[in-house]
Amino acid sequence: MKKRHLISTCTRVLVLAALPLIGFVPTAQCQTRLSDYIRPFVGTQGEGNTYPGPSAPFGMIQISPDTDTTNWETDSGYEYTDPTIQGFSLTHLSGTGCPDLGDFLFMPQVGQPALFPGRKDHPEEGYQSAFSHQDESAAAGYYSVKLLKSGVTAELTAGERAGMLRFTFPASDQASILTDLSHIIGPWHVAESRVRIEDNSTITGFHLINGWAKERYLYFAARYSRPFDGAVILSDGRPVIYNSYANYRFRSRREAAGTRLQFFALFKTHAGEVIQVKVALSAVCSADALQNLDAEIPGWDFDKVRAATRASWDRELRRVQIEGTPQQKETFYTSLYHALLVPNLYEDVNGDYRGFDQNIHRAKGFTDYTVFSLWDTFRAEHPLLALIHAKRDSDMINSMLAHYDQSADHLLPMWELQGNETWCMIGYHAVPVIVDGYLKGVRGFDAQRAYDAIKTTAMNPDYDGLAAYRRLGWVPCDEENESLSKTLEYAYDDWCIAQMARALGQTNDYAHFMKRAAGYKNIYDPSIGWMRPKDSRGHWRAPFNPHAFGGGEHLADVTEGTSSQYSWFVPQDVPGLIALMGGREKFIAKLDSLFTDTEATKELSPADQRGCIGEYWHGNEPSHHIIYLYCYAGQPWKTARLLHQVVTTQYGNQPGSLCGNDDCGQMSAWYLFTCLGFYPVCPGSDYYVIGAPQIPKAVMRLSNGKTFTMTAEDLSDRNIYVQSVKLNGKNWDSTFLPYAELKNGGKIDFTMGPQPSTTWGIHPSIPE
Amino acid sequence: MKKRHLISTCTRVLVLAALPLIGFVPTAQCQTRLSDYIRPFVGTQGEGNTYPGPSAPFGMIQISPDTDTTNWETDSGYEYTDPTIQGFSLTHLSGTGCPDLGDFLFMPQVGQPALFPGRKDHPEEGYQSAFSHQDESAAAGYYSVKLLKSGVTAELTAGERAGMLRFTFPASDQASILTDLSHIIGPWHVAESRVRIEDNSTITGFHLINGWAKERYLYFAARYSRPFDGAVILSDGRPVIYNSYANYRFRSRREAAGTRLQFFALFKTHAGEVIQVKVALSAVCSADALQNLDAEIPGWDFDKVRAATRASWDRELRRVQIEGTPQQKETFYTSLYHALLVPNLYEDVNGDYRGFDQNIHRAKGFTDYTVFSLWDTFRAEHPLLALIHAKRDSDMINSMLAHYDQSADHLLPMWELQGNETWCMIGYHAVPVIVDGYLKGVRGFDAQRAYDAIKTTAMNPDYDGLAAYRRLGWVPCDEENESLSKTLEYAYDDWCIAQMARALGQTNDYAHFMKRAAGYKNIYDPSIGWMRPKDSRGHWRAPFNPHAFGGGEHLADVTEGTSSQYSWFVPQDVPGLIALMGGREKFIAKLDSLFTDTEATKELSPADQRGCIGEYWHGNEPSHHIIYLYCYAGQPWKTARLLHQVVTTQYGNQPGSLCGNDDCGQMSAWYLFTCLGFYPVCPGSDYYVIGAPQIPKAVMRLSNGKTFTMTAEDLSDRNIYVQSVKLNGKNWDSTFLPYAELKNGGKIDFTMGPQPSTTWGIHPSIPE
Repeated sequence: MKKRHLISTCTRVLVLAALPLIGFVPTAQCQTRLSDYIRPFVGTQGEGNTYPGPSAPFGMIQISPDTDTTNWETDSGYEYTDPTIQGFSLTHLSGTGCPDLGDFLFMPQVGQPALFPGRKDHPEEGYQSAFSHQDESAAAGYYSVKLLKSGVTAELTAGERAGMLRFTFPASDQASILTDLSHIIGPWHVAESRVRIEDNSTITGFHLINGWAKERYLYFAARYSRPFDGAVILSDGRPVIYNSYANYRFRSRREAAGTRLQFFALFKTHAGEVIQVKVALSAVCSADALQNLDAEIPGWDFDKVRAATRASWDRELRRVQIEGTPQQKETFYTSLYHALLVPNLYEDVNGDYRGFDQNIHRAKGFTDYTVFSLWDTFRAEHPLLALIHAKRDSDMINSMLAHYDQSADHLLPMWELQGNETWCMIGYHAVPVIVDGYLKGVRGFDAQRAYDAIKTTAMNPDYDGLAAYRRLGWVPCDEENESLSKTLEYAYDDWCIAQMARALGQTNDYAHFMKRAAGYKNIYDPSIGWMRPKDSRGHWRAPFNPHAFGGGEHLADVTEGTSSQYSWFVPQDVPGLIALMGGREKFIAKLDSLFTDTEATKELSPADQRGCIGEYWHGNEPSHHIIYLYCYAGQPWKTARLLHQVVTTQYGNQPGSLCGNDDCGQMSAWYLFTCLGFYPVCPGSDYYVIGAPQIPKAVMRLSNGKTFTMTAEDLSDRNIYVQSVKLNGKNWDSTFLPYAELKNGGKIDFTMGPQPSTTWGIHPSIPE
Repeated sequence: MKKRHLISTCTRVLVLAALPLIGFVPTAQCQTRLSDYIRPFVGTQGEGNTYPGPSAPFGMIQISPDTDTTNWETDSGYEYTDPTIQGFSLTHLSGTGCPDLGDFLFMPQVGQPALFPGRKDHPEEGYQSAFSHQDESAAAGYYSVKLLKSGVTAELTAGERAGMLRFTFPASDQASILTDLSHIIGPWHVAESRVRIEDNSTITGFHLINGWAKERYLYFAARYSRPFDGAVILSDGRPVIYNSYANYRFRSRREAAGTRLQFFALFKTHAGEVIQVKVALSAVCSADALQNLDAEIPGWDFDKVRAATRASWDRELRRVQIEGTPQQKETFYTSLYHALLVPNLYEDVNGDYRGFDQNIHRAKGFTDYTVFSLWDTFRAEHPLLALIHAKRDSDMINSMLAHYDQSADHLLPMWELQGNETWCMIGYHAVPVIVDGYLKGVRGFDAQRAYDAIKTTAMNPDYDGLAAYRRLGWVPCDEENESLSKTLEYAYDDWCIAQMARALGQTNDYAHFMKRAAGYKNIYDPSIGWMRPKDSRGHWRAPFNPHAFGGGEHLADVTEGTSSQYSWFVPQDVPGLIALMGGREKFIAKLDSLFTDTEATKELSPADQRGCIGEYWHGNEPSHHIIYLYCYAGQPWKTARLLHQVVTTQYGNQPGSLCGNDDCGQMSAWYLFTCLGFYPVCPGSDYYVIGAPQIPKAVMRLSNGKTFTMTAEDLSDRNIYVQSVKLNGKNWDSTFLPYAELKNGGKIDFTMGPQPSTTWGIHPSIPE
């Protein structure tokens, strides 16, 4: 990012005022606010797949500019290097690796309205407009851009379910605001849509998308700040109007149903005329969308909505207050912002939501959420929420339990998207989310009900090779794709189930699932020293290349990676893995090789190589815990060195700073934990792994209101190695941070230095 | 109909038992019940477009066999002359001229299940089966047929929202019951469908149809009387099953979404094994369909459901008890059955329904109905309901007012179908329904609110040439199709509005609408003696042929008929029409010519000529009142002669007895009134026109509980002319029956004879 996208007025005044004084002294009148550090453009260039538009924390609505809908790599709709904007749609996925959403595009135009977006390199053909980053800014709850074609300035803000678009028009007899109901991000199909002109300044609409989510219903309502001077609905590019000779009989011009619908609000504008559009969503019905709109934004005060959302972000960001350089703060708070965008609110103000069975349910005793990217978020995103946001985590767990109740397959969600199961990715990682939450004190859900759902899910006779896995102890590669990854992830999930079984006194279940959790050993091939796919007769996959993406020729044994990455996925039993690999020395040597071998990456395209350190690939989740494994083997300085490398090279405050998909906050949550000096290598366990802090100080406000403070004395770009640690005032030589030491608040004090300590953490006391 | 389709056990026993006795003496133990006279096959051959399957009175569900889905003339799905049955679907339109519904086909099969219906002449290709009328029967609430291909006997029964299918299978390892979610009657599009296996004997499903109704949502639930031995969902003919190598990752085999879905319940059956399926509908959601199912049919007693629906029909038919021959009773009670099938219940047991705005509403203080074929049913169907079924009529009026409230165009319904406006046909004939109801004492709705809706509808600036009609006094033929018919029908509707305005004391409105009501005079061309299209400059359409269908070359000035038929549509001012046509003699001569001229019909196809008497076409509604116009001109014997001709040649108890579309009961309601000796020529007026009774005696139970009795002394096939009338004991020479003489009960006694009376009715005292 070549320029600062937002310098708040407040900050600028401060800087000027501070000049003659003694440096940077925030005053009570005009303090720099934490939300000022949010850089919404981070991750919008390349594979981060974030979006720059405004959203409230965990909000239902995300209004953001779309520059592309067809490029699979632009899954959020916005790519920073694109030259044009198609318009502003109301929903966006944050950091996913699959496109969807982008529902209901709003785009102002001046002159004869265009009906198609046109091509990026020929925006004059359509309604998309060139723009310049010079005329663009984004902040917490706010985005603005000047559209060069029309001269319209577009500003966006968003509350939880409703938001506003503010358009400043030039003088024109032909000003218009398009709503394109067929706009969607990704190659998806509009099965049905509908739009209605409710009155002379209100419309409602709907579409049903067959996309990543197989059957996704979304409704919207829009109120305009003044009556239309004209209004027309187009279906397949033709006006739906009363025309006695074109239509044999009357057809309403006030509503239409079809698969390619567009609505144009037409205005005659004077120079500088501001026309605002209030919008809201519902997954239930258009009446609920209108109710959400009027309940959340009764007036027309754009700045009030913006200020309220900014204040919400300030409240959220205060959960972790840090010290550091402006760049560190921008990176940290933007990461926290990304971590607190998703999952998304999915119930209306009246508590109704569309269930996984497509029936309308009322959320009783909880708030319903959607967008569960669980294969990613079980790792650090949900452990973060459990720690600092237990109420939300509880609501999310209840949402998943409702999903289970509504599931035809009696399964907890895998990758849930707006009331649909996408069956994306593998494992049953709702389990570690629920178990880690439960064991970390998240309450507000029925533990026994949750356990029943967990166990039923893990016993499903149909799901992805589970039956064979239960029979054999591994997922057989001749019967099931991705068998290597599934075996490892199931074993970890099963270990989590065992922990909850133990907590609930289910002794038999504990034994059963602990046995399953050891199944990872069944696919370790000592002859090659790596995890290896095994068939149903017990024969190893041959040929097999542990360094090949997907596993080699078959290309489907390993999920989005190599065995050389996946072999480390035994978070539940690292000592067991160490033993399996021949002891600590061999374990370390193999781990070292991961960061130097390049066989796996040499055939990757440049786009896929982002985040690679040897065969370690920070751009995707299977690698996320691996750096911390040195801490189990007495060489925490290697963890420290690599963490520093990743933090300084693969995160930042620039559009291109994210090395891979943010994946609904997981990439960001990794960063947040890592900065704080510890990481949940094994969610569901009662400890974190101490790595190396990346910021000088942080104060976390835990879910229970207690604070836990981290300090890193002498931390600098050179002093990256932990020399010693004090935990709640005691010397702490372990590389493990027990949850018990954290949960009631307290402090951890690191002393950092330029060389690895020869004493700290070299005798890891591995928690059992 | 070559054979009697149902002789109830009861009747057979009676006949045998009665032989040695003194004739036909019903006993208390085993009386012939009115429902025994229902002949559901009437109207299923040719253009009647009725269906033979079971339905409760005004029921939401109509389970019936479908023999065709593609022939536009088989709009109910069943054509009596077809040799095969595709299966049994859950919804059917009764007598419409446009195909739709046929939702959710159930079909038992034996052997390898077929996936396509196949062709009629090659049923072996698909799942459709040959059948014989010898093996088929239908009665109130019951239908059965033996499917020759599989040997399965299928029996159907239906309650209000739920019904049952009972299949008796032969022994087979490969028995199955298909549910085809893509089956639909007509050339319509499945925009989306979904099916879910809820448990081992329950499924739910849904489809969204873009059809005659632009966006029609319907949900179903089905419970099977025993667990499936297997179950499979097909999408586009391919199994949706767990198959690790065909599908890269897990896909549920318990649910699917798509546009061509089929569910197969698989069974191993022993000889004679009965498998029952309980089914229910909802327009709201599948949860409501399940709720409707379990509330209405908690058990598995097919015969109990059948008996309950039969009892409902007995209760309904007792509203008009007649004497007559078995054939007269069969024709009469079948007509009453058809008149009381539609409109259809549209709310769930919890009161929820899908509104015209596609939001879910709860009906408060009324029961919601759908299927309003108003261009047809304002004529005699709704006047019949107002007279004998005021509560239902009130609910229907409230349903229409809710539709108005939910209409984007602020219009009362025109041709409503399952929460959609089809914009089918012309006029705004919700108006006469509401006005006639109100003036006939139908209560339970807010009269002022109804009046506001009526007036707003009639003032709509967009609807079908209304603006020009208000400006000019006629609908101009250069600006609007069907201008001749629209002008005449608007004028009548406006007269109705005036009557309600007067009743509510709206004097100015009364004058305004009475002026509009006289607009029919603007398009009467004395030079040709017929109504004639006029353009916006006041010039007559030329060339113009009053005897040509549609009006001649332009083919779009007259709605489904000729000016020679439509010129008589001035029910609100027949004296004015008589004057316009040059007085009584000329009026009569012209009316005579209608029944002898053949120019209009000679070019019609044989199929379209059904019901033609000269240019009078009983097969379509614009002619329905015309025969009664002789009674305004002092020649009631011509009415009598023609009524007798129509009743004896165009109605009956056979499949082919109906000469035209039953049109949701209108054809049948015409017959019912005509049999009773009077007809609502001008709904909204305070009188009926006395024609000539066609049955010897009838006792009507009016909505207020009073009875009105009709007797026709000496009526026979020869004695068809009214000689004299006594009304409530008084001699009654008028051909008009005031509502005031009827509403408190009483009697009308006709004396019939073989020759026209030279005295009765020759001095018509035309009500003003």
